[in-house]
Amino acid sequence: MSGTQVKFQPRETIQQVEEGSDLAPKFDDRGLITVVTTDADSGELLMQGYMNAEALALTIQTGEAHYYSRSRKVLWHKGATSGFVQAVRELLVDDDQDCLWLRVDVAGGASCHVGYRSCFYRRVPVGEAYVEQQSEGQIDLEWTDTEKVFDPVDVYGDAPNPTLL
Amino acid sequence: MSGTQVKFQPRETIQQVEEGSDLAPKFDDRGLITVVTTDADSGELLMQGYMNAEALALTIQTGEAHYYSRSRKVLWHKGATSGFVQAVRELLVDDDQDCLWLRVDVAGGASCHVGYRSCFYRRVPVGEAYVEQQSEGQIDLEWTDTEKVFDPVDVYGDAPNPTLL
Repeated sequence: MSGTQVKFQPRETIQQVEEGSDLAPKFDDRGLITVVTTDADSGELLMQGYMNAEALALTIQTGEAHYYSRSRKVLWHKGATSGFVQAVRELLVDDDQDCLWLRVDVAGGASCHVGYRSCFYRRVPVGEAYVEQQSEGQIDLEWTDTEKVFDPVDVYGDAPNPTLL
Repeated sequence: MSGTQVKFQPRETIQQVEEGSDLAPKFDDRGLITVVTTDADSGELLMQGYMNAEALALTIQTGEAHYYSRSRKVLWHKGATSGFVQAVRELLVDDDQDCLWLRVDVAGGASCHVGYRSCFYRRVPVGEAYVEQQSEGQIDLEWTDTEKVFDPVDVYGDAPNPTLL
């Protein structure tokens, strides 16, 4: 690792944040910024996570996605356990700099701890016609992907499931 | 609007939330769930926002994206002011049901209050080679889109800018 440390700029004006070339991310009151991660080839949404300042600096420095795990409360080099490292092809920031978009190539092709390629493997049906047919407004999810890329037990063993109820 | 009200299920087990067909979204301590919105044709990330339970129910019932505006603290029918309504082509939910993915068709082609097609019009360069060249770790954003689809002053007039420093 280089000795150079990535620095973020203070947020001073709306013009600077929205229309300037300063990287001046807005970390929330937990010190986190929202991250959206898509497959650089297919455009598929793989996951949505968070970075703290350290994770963002490491992502920029190394070109590999680092996150902050809210459930485990640790810096998280994605793929360190599973091998499914995310190589950053492009990193973008939104207008008010409170969200990052990572376009990545995923080693091994999976991003979801449940074993699917993407965390988004279920569809919510929409529209008045659908809702009216349902008993008392109950919504039944539909599967868009039923094939797991890996078995979570093989990869994570008995590590605690990060899903919180 | 139909009299049928969309209902969400209580979150009872990890199995139910991750592998079941119940829609059991996790709203955070502010009553919000994160939403990622992409262009259904191009896969481009248009915006990242939030919904409360009412916004999610309305999105499901009407097939048009409704959000909760954190800066304005109101239910927000996207496009009500600008005309850039988002028709939901597909709505997906992630493994632990704390994030939604909206794939939309945008009337008028813009989603960003600054006037660009997408909120993500600037790239953050990554990689050790880039960082080492920079003076004291400063990062200079690069533009990926320089053409505004509309003039915000024409559309929003003197309404307060939603960006918070």
